[in-house]
Amino acid sequence: MQARVSLEDVSALARGCAVLGTGGGGDVRPAAVAARGAIREYGEVPLVRLDELPGDALVLPLSGIGAPTVSNEMIQSADEPLHIRDEIERIFGRPPAAVMSSEIGGGNGVSPVAWAARLGLPLLDADAMGRAFPEVQMVSMYVAGIPANLVVMADVLGNVVTIRPVDGLWSERIARAVCVASGSSALMADYVLTAAECAGAVIEGTVGRAIAIGRATEGAQDPLAALEAELGAVRLVTGKLTDLERRTTGGFARGTVTIEGTGGDRGRKLTLEIQNENLVAIEDGVVRAMVPDLITVVDSQTATAVQTESLRYGQRVTVLAWPCDPLWRTPKGLETAGPRAFGYDLDYVPVEAIETAGSAA
Amino acid sequence: MQARVSLEDVSALARGCAVLGTGGGGDVRPAAVAARGAIREYGEVPLVRLDELPGDALVLPLSGIGAPTVSNEMIQSADEPLHIRDEIERIFGRPPAAVMSSEIGGGNGVSPVAWAARLGLPLLDADAMGRAFPEVQMVSMYVAGIPANLVVMADVLGNVVTIRPVDGLWSERIARAVCVASGSSALMADYVLTAAECAGAVIEGTVGRAIAIGRATEGAQDPLAALEAELGAVRLVTGKLTDLERRTTGGFARGTVTIEGTGGDRGRKLTLEIQNENLVAIEDGVVRAMVPDLITVVDSQTATAVQTESLRYGQRVTVLAWPCDPLWRTPKGLETAGPRAFGYDLDYVPVEAIETAGSAA
Repeated sequence: MQARVSLEDVSALARGCAVLGTGGGGDVRPAAVAARGAIREYGEVPLVRLDELPGDALVLPLSGIGAPTVSNEMIQSADEPLHIRDEIERIFGRPPAAVMSSEIGGGNGVSPVAWAARLGLPLLDADAMGRAFPEVQMVSMYVAGIPANLVVMADVLGNVVTIRPVDGLWSERIARAVCVASGSSALMADYVLTAAECAGAVIEGTVGRAIAIGRATEGAQDPLAALEAELGAVRLVTGKLTDLERRTTGGFARGTVTIEGTGGDRGRKLTLEIQNENLVAIEDGVVRAMVPDLITVVDSQTATAVQTESLRYGQRVTVLAWPCDPLWRTPKGLETAGPRAFGYDLDYVPVEAIETAGSAA
Repeated sequence: MQARVSLEDVSALARGCAVLGTGGGGDVRPAAVAARGAIREYGEVPLVRLDELPGDALVLPLSGIGAPTVSNEMIQSADEPLHIRDEIERIFGRPPAAVMSSEIGGGNGVSPVAWAARLGLPLLDADAMGRAFPEVQMVSMYVAGIPANLVVMADVLGNVVTIRPVDGLWSERIARAVCVASGSSALMADYVLTAAECAGAVIEGTVGRAIAIGRATEGAQDPLAALEAELGAVRLVTGKLTDLERRTTGGFARGTVTIEGTGGDRGRKLTLEIQNENLVAIEDGVVRAMVPDLITVVDSQTATAVQTESLRYGQRVTVLAWPCDPLWRTPKGLETAGPRAFGYDLDYVPVEAIETAGSAA
């Protein structure tokens, strides 16, 4: 029997996407509301593996772009996916066969369920990040060397814009400008690919993985241990959020968060550097995990991920870190989304290598 | 024999377009340099009448958008027209058959000669304004009720953007945003129409008229009288530019110019209100001419039009005014580009009616 995303799956998906979002990727709550609403109205969404699609089937990677508060309303609107589908059909001469999430992390991993339901299309069990990243060129297709030669955007009013950029950076620049002109939010399809082209250029299995992550803590005696095991994560610290500095620069929600250890971690102090997502974890001047590896702050009791905008002084939290998809550890992957791509003068060391070195010391 | 725009025609065209630009429409000089260069490289440009094109021939209205100083470089670049043609061919399944000027006034009326030469296409003897206007929705197609449902833009780097806007105002808003993101200048095609659709929706004969206006003063004993006769213009004042106030607000070069009469006009004082173009002429608190009628400042000796950016204190100038195309005097025309569309609380009175009333008084 074919896999489907049901109403109940949406809750698990939202929990898992929040964990994979490393603080960012957009609020999962309104996205889950929209996904449930769309499933109620249009039915459950088939979840297909890449090898289940014909080689020439068009895959439509969709994501929201723009201010989160506005996006929350946008994803409840119904017509953007239809406008994008129509434009894709005009351009390619055939309609898309499946929707794909561009970014499994945060709300952007949940909303595609609503868009796929609205279009009556299956959702591909894959995404382009395996986590969340802030910029449109930080996608697996870019790392795979596929030219970013087409972006289609639709806004809530019905304006549709097609960009054929010279490269991914211009794609980002023009798409942001269109987004701001369109009232600060839009739905976007980029890298429309055939299923054959997707092979090796997308990260497979991530929707299923997000649902599994969400399910791992359900009914668990020790949700934190269950989540840690599911992720294969290192526990960096368990403690209390004692300092939180936020600033918005260059369109990013930047911040520095300090967590002081409690219990067995008493006396320890971990600092997180944030640019939309949690990027670097530092303890005693030593980096303990860094982007593109995943670093997520979770509630110590429930193991629910705390997204960046929900961080508050006094929260009892645990910081987990675990390995990113191998694609991000290639030279092109690190050039695209490694520490230096975010302005940190750090040589990337995989999180598991840091931990091993730490234990050996 | 078919009409062609030759190297020598470019000078006359540039002079005529400057006159029709009512101060705006972009500097004619760099546009003329580009047009001559393109004719030298690619040959003379056939000038065709609308009734010479098959009904299903695609007409490509082209215009520059963005900061003039950058545009001057842009129009010398060669590839933007090719990118736009390729995108049009992708969208419509056939290439355009002729280029049209969106705006005959100023440099925007001259540059299409270069673009048509580069594309090896004829230039349609028509435009969408019969003059210059500052906003993209101020075009004959909009007045004719044709939906602004497609805009194609190309920048100097090779980025191509296609906009399917919900209306002309959104078209303008998104196109400007893309233009700013693309380094502040771009080439733009909007309202791509078949020749059959152009009938009644473009202003015919304006390229030929601009060339005739340019030729009228060549070798004339009294260039000013010759230009006045060619235009059927009213001479509002002859005098000296004694005051010039410039300000840039909302993307417009706004200004107020005062011309004090000399010779037979001694004791008279005319004020011009400018928003890129000369919009309203006032004498003793009485409006003597107003947009959409044409108001142009010319050198009193040579009858050469003085574009807004070249206005200088002390210039000896004459202000001419003459009737716009009848299209702009319809209710929809006045709503689109009448005095109130520019923020002036004035009921439109045709320039010839004002003069008749003035003479009768």
